Formats: sequence, structure tokens, C-alpha cells
Amino acid sequence: MKEELILAGERVDDLQLKGLKIIQNPEGFCFGIDAVLLSNFAEIKKNATVVDLCTGTGIVPLLVAGKSQASKIYGIEIQNSVADMAQRSVKLNGLEERVEIIEDDLKKAFNHLSPGSVDVVTCNPPYIASGGGILNPHSYKAISRHEVLCTLEDVIASASKLLCNKGTLFMVHRPSRLIDISYLARKYGLEPKIIRFVQPKANKKPNILLVKCVKGGNPELKFMDPLIVYEEDGDYTQEIYKIYNNENIDVFNKG
Amino acid sequence: MKEELILAGERVDDLQLKGLKIIQNPEGFCFGIDAVLLSNFAEIKKNATVVDLCTGTGIVPLLVAGKSQASKIYGIEIQNSVADMAQRSVKLNGLEERVEIIEDDLKKAFNHLSPGSVDVVTCNPPYIASGGGILNPHSYKAISRHEVLCTLEDVIASASKLLCNKGTLFMVHRPSRLIDISYLARKYGLEPKIIRFVQPKANKKPNILLVKCVKGGNPELKFMDPLIVYEEDGDYTQEIYKIYNNENIDVFNKG
Repeated sequence: MKEELILAGERVDDLQLKGLKIIQNPEGFCFGIDAVLLSNFAEIKKNATVVDLCTGTGIVPLLVAGKSQASKIYGIEIQNSVADMAQRSVKLNGLEERVEIIEDDLKKAFNHLSPGSVDVVTCNPPYIASGGGILNPHSYKAISRHEVLCTLEDVIASASKLLCNKGTLFMVHRPSRLIDISYLARKYGLEPKIIRFVQPKANKKPNILLVKCVKGGNPELKFMDPLIVYEEDGDYTQEIYKIYNNENIDVFNKG
Repeated sequence: MKEELILAGERVDDLQLKGLKIIQNPEGFCFGIDAVLLSNFAEIKKNATVVDLCTGTGIVPLLVAGKSQASKIYGIEIQNSVADMAQRSVKLNGLEERVEIIEDDLKKAFNHLSPGSVDVVTCNPPYIASGGGILNPHSYKAISRHEVLCTLEDVIASASKLLCNKGTLFMVHRPSRLIDISYLARKYGLEPKIIRFVQPKANKKPNILLVKCVKGGNPELKFMDPLIVYEEDGDYTQEIYKIYNNENIDVFNKG
């Protein structure tokens, strides 16, 4: 391990996928189930160009690099210290040729990438609409959770502009934002085509929403069977074990 | 029973609710689980004025009359023969003072009702977007199932115009139309506030959508736990038995 890449207070977690590792700061925003489910949900073809908006510590680009044959994966992150951590994780994994972290506002993505040049956009955006909830006093946690620096409309507008015709956006969000997503996606020409709800138990309401939108797609929404996280007895379901490669599931959730 | 109200080829079904009955023609469009679930989902306060759009044979006004203390319930139906059957069902039940069937295009509802005068709108509209699917050769079945005479946008626009401020629309539809509903409801100032999906089994994708919209409501969508129709062993769930008053469930589904 390249020890010089790890700063004081940081830790390195094994992603249980082709030896990949990620640097995180336990005092900051560590990735959770959302990023893992998003990476699993995204369909990425060989040689695709992928952009992950609001990439944070780079978890989604790292998982996508491990799971797909995408040729180039960009992660855009506005917060300097977080983007720096993501860049160090890319180096730690020797992925500098396939993964590039861009430190900028996603609204300025077009200073780095051409409109219409991207096959797939992924995003695990701040969940809480601006004005909603109490802001976390640690600002970089607040920025990861609340729409402080970018709104859902910014995300959808940027994704639409980045994507090529028939390019796809894969997003994870809270079910409570479904109407906002539906309205804005259609407004920006990104038609929602597949929804998968994640339910804590089979008979409980969903608490995570996975949605696939297609740029220029026709209106035709399909649902997947819900992804159930826990069995009645409290154990994880077989599908969750499979997504987490059947082992060390707690590493992914200790953030 | 007032025999003269029943025409050749029609049958009378007992609604298992306060002695209510409905006239249906087995050759036509008979009500199914959707109308029952919609009536159960709708929240209707004492003395409310209710309008059911696309009322068909009047099943929803009859069930709402039996379940609520609404003072006046209008059902709007464009098809002459179907509206006539609904009117005869109203007479058969002696509900002429509380339930009124209006035979007209819902886009002309304002020839009969003042804009902003209604507390609750219910609707079990044609499911299939115009252009989609194969039209049923029996035209009055086709009109009940396909957007031949009214589109989803017509329904939502009329509901919004009829409702008072903070008035509510309760609609049953197919999950595949969720994006259309979300987009159009917001466009016409009817904010979706509660969604309940109906799933055939606990681990299966939804096949029916129940949605409550509030005129002038703030964006804040909540989900209810899904309504599961069948247990793993194929029997109905306790909740379905309860909605159907625990008896004679097949009467409601033999259409």
C-alpha cells in the first residue's frame, strides 16, 4: 500500500471487488448502501464513457471500474478535500488511466466534457431539498446530504446535456422525491423508463428509489420487482448478499 | 326489487355493503378490483361534495355513498347506455337524493358544476394511452379501457378545475402511467401527496397504483406500505378480505 496517500484520520476500506480499496474519513460522509445499489443497478456497456455526478469520495467510479468494461469514468465533485480524497483512492488502486476525478461544480462540467459525449451518467445526489431538514454543522456532510451547492434540477439538467441521444441516467434517490424526479426528468428530455424500489422488508413501503432514464426515450415506464433488504427474521436477503459478493457486508455499512 | 329497472341481458350484483346493489351487463365492462380499491383508498369527510369522473356503471359513487357521509356524489359518464345503467342503479338503491349521474363529456363538466365547488374527485380512468394496445371491437368496452374519448390530461385538467383549494383527487391507474400522472398533476397544480402500490404478491412488482393529489399542495410525497393481494399460498391477504368485508369476494371479481 502506498502509505503516503493516506492522511491522518483517514482509513482504507476493502471494496470486496477485484482488490479495490477506498479512502474514507470516518468523521466525514462515508458511502452506504445507496452507492452499492446504484453501481449494481447501472447497466454499462463495454467501452462506454461514464460520468458520476456528486461523486464524493469516488465510490461509484471505483465500483463501476471494477464491475464494467467502461473505457473512461469521470467523477465530478465540487468539494476540494473530498475530491482530493477521491483522487488519492484512484491512485491507490492504480486506476489513473480509466478513472479521472474532476474537481468542479457539476454546472461547469462542460468546461471539461463536451455536451452529448457521454453514454452513461450515474448520480447519488444530495437527498434533501434545499430548505428541508436541519443542516449538519459539519459543512461537507451537509453538502453531501442537502441541496446546498446543487439542486435536483441542476443534476438532471447537467445529466441531460452531457448524455448522447439514447444515453442513460441511473440515479438513486429517496422515494419522496419521485414526483420531482418525474417532472424534471421529462422537462429535460430524460424519460424515466425503469423504476426499482428498495423495501426494507417485503410488506414495507420503499425507502430507496432506483431509476433509469433514457435521453430522448419514449414514455413507457416499467417496474422491476422490489429489492427486499431484510428477510422477516432480520437476516439479509439472498439478493443483497449477492450484490455484496456474499461477504463482509458490514464493511459497506459501517459508515 | 324494481324489476322494470333491469333490462334484458343485465344482472344485479350485491355489493355486500349496506344492501347496495349494482346493475351490470356481463357483455360490457363490469367493475373489478380497481373500483373497490379506489373507493377504499378515498378519504371523504362528512358533507363533502364528491365527483367521480369516468364513472361507468356508477360503482364508485355507489360504494362512496355506502361508505361515507358525503352529502352529494356526482358521477360523470359520457356513454349514453352506460350512464343510463348507472342511473337505474341509483334508483334501484333509492339513492336519487345523494347520487346524481351526469351524462356528458367530462370536459363539459362545467356545464353542470361550478369550478372550485368540489371537495373530492375520484377517478378510475381508461388505462391505455391513445394509440397503445389493440382497440376492443365492442366500442363501449374500448372506451372504458382506452383513451378514446378522454385522455389522462383531460381527466387531470378537469379534476383540477372542479376542485376547491386543498381539495383532493383520488385516482387508480396502472403503475406504467406514473410518470405521466406525476408530470400532468404538477402541471395542473394537483400535487401528488400519497402513493400506494398494489402488488399481487409481497415480492412482486406493483400492478395497480393508487394516488392522492392535493390541489395547491406543497411537494411532499409519502408512500404507504404496499397493499399485497395474495399470500404466498395463493389465498387473499387479510387486508384484501377486510376491504371486501370478508365475504363473497368473488362477486367483485367475476366481471
